[in-house]
Amino acid sequence: MLSNHFQNGVETVRHAWSRIPNSEESQFVDDAVGLVRKSDGSSVESLDYEVIENFAYREEQARRGKLYVSYLLVVKWLFALLIGIGTGLAAVFINLSVENFAGWKFSLTFSIIQKSYIAGFLLYALINLVLVFSSVYIVTQFAPAAAGSGIPEIKGYLNGVDIHGILLLRTLIGKIFGSIGSVGGGLALGKEGPLVHTGACIASLLGQGGSTKYHINSRWFQVFRSDRDRRDLVTCGCAAGVAAAFRAPVGGVLFALEEVTSWWRSQLMWRVFFTSAIVAVVVRTAMGWCKNGNCGHFGSGGFIIWDISDGQEDYSFAELLPMAIIGVIGGLLGALFNQLTLYISSWRRNHLHKKGSRVKIIEACLVSLLTSIISFCLPLLRECSPCPESDPTSGIECPRPPGMYGNYVNFFCSSDKEYNDLATIFFNTQDDAIRNLFSAKTIHEYSSQSLLTFLVMFYTLAVLTFGTAVPAGQFVPGIMIGSTYGRLVGMFVVKYYKKLNIEEGTYALLGAASFLGGSMRMTVSLCVIMVEITNNLKLLPLIMLVLLISKAVGDAFNEGLYEEQARLRGIPLLESRPKYEMRNMTAKEACGSGRVISLPRVVKVSDVVSILRSNKHNGFPVIDHTRSGESLVIGLVLRSHLLVILQSKVDFQHSPLPSDPRGGDRSIRHDSHEFAKPVSSKGICIDDIHLSPDDLEMYIDLAPFLNPSPYIVPEDMSLTKVYNLFRQLGLRHLFVVPRPSRVLGLITRKDLMIEDTENVNTLELQSTSVRNRHHNKRPTTRNSDVERPLLNGLLVGSE
Amino acid sequence: MLSNHFQNGVETVRHAWSRIPNSEESQFVDDAVGLVRKSDGSSVESLDYEVIENFAYREEQARRGKLYVSYLLVVKWLFALLIGIGTGLAAVFINLSVENFAGWKFSLTFSIIQKSYIAGFLLYALINLVLVFSSVYIVTQFAPAAAGSGIPEIKGYLNGVDIHGILLLRTLIGKIFGSIGSVGGGLALGKEGPLVHTGACIASLLGQGGSTKYHINSRWFQVFRSDRDRRDLVTCGCAAGVAAAFRAPVGGVLFALEEVTSWWRSQLMWRVFFTSAIVAVVVRTAMGWCKNGNCGHFGSGGFIIWDISDGQEDYSFAELLPMAIIGVIGGLLGALFNQLTLYISSWRRNHLHKKGSRVKIIEACLVSLLTSIISFCLPLLRECSPCPESDPTSGIECPRPPGMYGNYVNFFCSSDKEYNDLATIFFNTQDDAIRNLFSAKTIHEYSSQSLLTFLVMFYTLAVLTFGTAVPAGQFVPGIMIGSTYGRLVGMFVVKYYKKLNIEEGTYALLGAASFLGGSMRMTVSLCVIMVEITNNLKLLPLIMLVLLISKAVGDAFNEGLYEEQARLRGIPLLESRPKYEMRNMTAKEACGSGRVISLPRVVKVSDVVSILRSNKHNGFPVIDHTRSGESLVIGLVLRSHLLVILQSKVDFQHSPLPSDPRGGDRSIRHDSHEFAKPVSSKGICIDDIHLSPDDLEMYIDLAPFLNPSPYIVPEDMSLTKVYNLFRQLGLRHLFVVPRPSRVLGLITRKDLMIEDTENVNTLELQSTSVRNRHHNKRPTTRNSDVERPLLNGLLVGSE
Repeated sequence: MLSNHFQNGVETVRHAWSRIPNSEESQFVDDAVGLVRKSDGSSVESLDYEVIENFAYREEQARRGKLYVSYLLVVKWLFALLIGIGTGLAAVFINLSVENFAGWKFSLTFSIIQKSYIAGFLLYALINLVLVFSSVYIVTQFAPAAAGSGIPEIKGYLNGVDIHGILLLRTLIGKIFGSIGSVGGGLALGKEGPLVHTGACIASLLGQGGSTKYHINSRWFQVFRSDRDRRDLVTCGCAAGVAAAFRAPVGGVLFALEEVTSWWRSQLMWRVFFTSAIVAVVVRTAMGWCKNGNCGHFGSGGFIIWDISDGQEDYSFAELLPMAIIGVIGGLLGALFNQLTLYISSWRRNHLHKKGSRVKIIEACLVSLLTSIISFCLPLLRECSPCPESDPTSGIECPRPPGMYGNYVNFFCSSDKEYNDLATIFFNTQDDAIRNLFSAKTIHEYSSQSLLTFLVMFYTLAVLTFGTAVPAGQFVPGIMIGSTYGRLVGMFVVKYYKKLNIEEGTYALLGAASFLGGSMRMTVSLCVIMVEITNNLKLLPLIMLVLLISKAVGDAFNEGLYEEQARLRGIPLLESRPKYEMRNMTAKEACGSGRVISLPRVVKVSDVVSILRSNKHNGFPVIDHTRSGESLVIGLVLRSHLLVILQSKVDFQHSPLPSDPRGGDRSIRHDSHEFAKPVSSKGICIDDIHLSPDDLEMYIDLAPFLNPSPYIVPEDMSLTKVYNLFRQLGLRHLFVVPRPSRVLGLITRKDLMIEDTENVNTLELQSTSVRNRHHNKRPTTRNSDVERPLLNGLLVGSE
Repeated sequence: MLSNHFQNGVETVRHAWSRIPNSEESQFVDDAVGLVRKSDGSSVESLDYEVIENFAYREEQARRGKLYVSYLLVVKWLFALLIGIGTGLAAVFINLSVENFAGWKFSLTFSIIQKSYIAGFLLYALINLVLVFSSVYIVTQFAPAAAGSGIPEIKGYLNGVDIHGILLLRTLIGKIFGSIGSVGGGLALGKEGPLVHTGACIASLLGQGGSTKYHINSRWFQVFRSDRDRRDLVTCGCAAGVAAAFRAPVGGVLFALEEVTSWWRSQLMWRVFFTSAIVAVVVRTAMGWCKNGNCGHFGSGGFIIWDISDGQEDYSFAELLPMAIIGVIGGLLGALFNQLTLYISSWRRNHLHKKGSRVKIIEACLVSLLTSIISFCLPLLRECSPCPESDPTSGIECPRPPGMYGNYVNFFCSSDKEYNDLATIFFNTQDDAIRNLFSAKTIHEYSSQSLLTFLVMFYTLAVLTFGTAVPAGQFVPGIMIGSTYGRLVGMFVVKYYKKLNIEEGTYALLGAASFLGGSMRMTVSLCVIMVEITNNLKLLPLIMLVLLISKAVGDAFNEGLYEEQARLRGIPLLESRPKYEMRNMTAKEACGSGRVISLPRVVKVSDVVSILRSNKHNGFPVIDHTRSGESLVIGLVLRSHLLVILQSKVDFQHSPLPSDPRGGDRSIRHDSHEFAKPVSSKGICIDDIHLSPDDLEMYIDLAPFLNPSPYIVPEDMSLTKVYNLFRQLGLRHLFVVPRPSRVLGLITRKDLMIEDTENVNTLELQSTSVRNRHHNKRPTTRNSDVERPLLNGLLVGSE
């Protein structure tokens, strides 16, 4: 009765589908799920992490031996190595460039302000402007997907949503050079988020690279054809990016684990960790090489290690109160930051960025000018303070020698023995500013007035800068903001608690942790990253306390920064926990009351074309009838596979009867990798396929191409359970079916305890009569059956 | 037709079930899956991580408000805190006791050998014997489940297999006091594995504790009623145990994540990390308190921190070769260790331990005597070496002052300026021996002859000791063995490479990592633990290299220590990756060809009893018929629930017709927690239930008690996919059903993107027409339906 429906023409179909909410694209692209419309033309598509066990796949599996598995393993580790090296080198390159641009900028400015502060300002603003312009120009003209931090997009990718363009070569290039411009240009943003994106791009390009660029033979390419394999590579790339940004290999692994990935296998963990360690080795080697002066201005800055191992050793219980206050402030300011950036980005997207890339460029340049003015002119308004008594043991000079990095910047001061505390944090690269804020043994360096001014100004700048069309990370600005109010609280603690062993720098660190916790809501990974970058394991419990509070406070107001941004960008993330409401819903209710568009096993080409044209569904159930006339769901066929079949035309047949899969040369008509989705292109579109009228009259037997056993749930299963199934297996399509009429068997743990044939020797110690029979029998009887498609037996035999 | 079957009596059933391989127990207990028969009477049962959405559960869900969710959250965090404090205190107690016993033993022995070596030996051997006897006595007489490390059992528990007795209070007590005896008694074993088990016991007891012991009110107990919640607690306890054993909070989290748990949710991570950090704080506080001399002999030993931060700073590429050799040796020796311990434990189980606990006690005492003889007498045979030139900067004295811990032990030497290198490592607590092996700036302290002797002897002792009936960890012996050959290799490197900056201690560390990697096959967590206990982040890449090699070499021979031991003990672990053979098998094949025992919706009590008596299945499909006569699977009922119903008798009815669930007081007859499985007992057994002949003639309507929607798979789904579903969702039963006849709907990502009602405010920024309608409508319409059982609508309405 379903195939009748197709003979009646497609008018009814066309009429019906528009009300069916099954199509992913109909939501994502057409009516945009209550998310912002994709005005920039980028589209969102689900990834396919499920193994499509079609005929070609099964045939290939049968061909592959144990040797292939080892080969796969070697290639995977090789790629992990390459991702590590690539990301490490990219990080070194970005850091070197930023440090050199910034160093050159500051030393030039400092030498000119000896003569004229106005000329100095003009030069300073101009250099910043040029750098920012180059960044925004690259991004808008060449790689629009490189704007922003990229973490929400990568998070979406690893959650199963493909945002077109985020993993292209041009995005990688845009990200690297854009970061150099935007960070070197002194904007209130960091290079850490972009480095994560960079790592992911490198990983994805390596996985794809075999085919298009480097002409490695096709067997190489075969390895990483599925979305599932690519996901693993991108996970490695993410961890590598964090490891490179913070020189925190363990933090990188945990970041990938906690914040970015949605699925995780313990085998992957070791590979991810390996990649991170490789990055650490590469960065360390490069820094060792730079110590010999080979890298220009690349000095103590660049790679973030704010060593506070000489910080506070001990703390009293009375200090826990101010620390808790830091946590609360962090939660409030972080949540406010998320909310403000959400409003501003949303306004930008809806009003400003629609007007084209010229507006984006002008906007970024204006922000750059504003940043230059504030960071240069505010310190001018500040009176200089006299240098404190110098303490030869601390090794800190006041004022700092010209051309170097450090505390106590002499800027617009009347005397040589004075320093400008606002310039120390404002008129500096952010890495150095943070180092100055974290610094121990510099009590009373900053006045509370300066810190407050800086906090307000920098917070405003960070909010304004967020969302401009340049690569932008929020880690370093977050640390800046947090450490400023942290140090403020620390100053009050020093003042009122009157204890000698309190270090303001330690409070600054806690402040940084609290703001990041309040904004990004990361927990374990943030803890470990903070410990690794400050090299001080003793502060771990304090950091945890502060994070617990700030995350709890922030959660009371809104979601984390990345989740908010993902939502804004229309990336539908599936959280790990089902929503509370789902307990009271069933699978049937969730998938709506619309009709499902099914295909018969043997389908007319013209029907396929009109169905594909008439909707945007990505998967279609295939229905066949047994000899006794009962209908039977025989599988799921993907739109992309249908398009491949239509394009190649080799499977067209004149007869409307099922072809016999045992005879003929069907097995060699398609190779499994023809069905692999290309990673960087949109794949074929139905409008690209041109079929002659003769072609349209022919038939296709879909049996060899369908996924014979997609996961199914009964219609009245509660949505919580459906959600768990969908989310944990990373599915794209899930069939909702009627309750079964009978149970053929129960699978329990013991049915799955099948021994590998190789491991028999270790088992022979024990009495293995039952199990031995099992594994001796099964593989032999089964191996011969592999060649026939799964469903053939079903259609002829059962019922 | 199925209910007819039951009226015919149970003879046919009894005849049929014996050939059905669906019953879990029939495998685990009766024919023992090719694993060792459970001669000690302990039994293995699967845990139920799936939510049983029966009527009582749904009713309770409906009663619970949002407030309850917050309450749950608070209780969960409170329990995490308590687990941390409890495990920390237990670790401190064990360490204090061991250090005091061992310190007292060694100081007494050293004072006596000044007069007579024979008297000294007798005293030494006697003290050891008494300690070991107390340990083995406690374990055999009081807590048999406390023997061994406990990690395989905990791993099994978190994989979904309940081994009776592993989480009882008596096991906890046996573990704590047994560890003190066995470690204090100088056996070649450690206290780290037992501490993991201790943490898990504390966690489980806390979760259960409310009900039986401390009379906290019943709402408390409600929180952790399901296996799923207990799993989370036990995970926290595991991480706490590792954190306490090694003072490595991050390592603890990663150990729990990588090695122990099989399911992981990112929400859990933060809680686990919190627990670990609490442990670190508790242990640190206790150690600070002990520094003031409150803790007797508790000095530098005890908590393992082998600080080698003054170790080797740099390494050349030429050193990578000896390091790789260390990796290979570690893989070989580790695999050999696993194999030997497997043979010996298997022999012990099959021949020795069957003869009762007296044999176990004698065996442990013999091992203790042997250990005493070897560790005391071998150093006597060794000639003393003269002390090296003393280096005042290193702070190492030779010989060490009496009564202290350190290098250069003067033992059976003729001169005061000599030391006995074999006694330095043999005649010492293991923690101190490791510290001496890791020590830097002590080049040429050991002769290769001594190290080789020690390696062979200690390896043999460790293999022999493994499997005696005392609590025993393998971490410390592994580190001992590994650091010995590591130091040996280091000595050769020093000799042949002739470089000044090579530290033998660093090679010893790498050796330790390699042996643990080769034996336990852990990766990331081992890396992090090694880094945390040695406080040296710079060695991370080298440790990784060594681990990569040793794990790969070891994997070529056998499985990891814990997997081998789990297999030996009959714990059926499901690995995270499906077996290769499963690609060619279908679900139908896996569950065998036997018949499934189903129950009708309304079943006679006598039928239930005879079915429960006749087999050991734990789950039964329930079949009903629609009005049109079609059969329909309406759910799964658990044996344990049936037993509760039979025992309470309140649900018996005279009529064989379905009761109307809307009328009557059914809703208050059962509370959800009546169905909760008690954590520490076996639950009710069918033979415990006494029913009168009148009772047997009555009927039960199973509808309110069944899980209405267990997960289902079509019969010809490949076993790989079935495995993934089963493993990742932590199931116990999975229905294999015929292919569905139609698809009612497709669930895709967008169907699951349902907004929480609270989060509407953040969404209102965007156009939310579609989504808003959804979530405004659904909760209101659904809330009223909650009260009716799911399947009622189905039975009356559909088809």
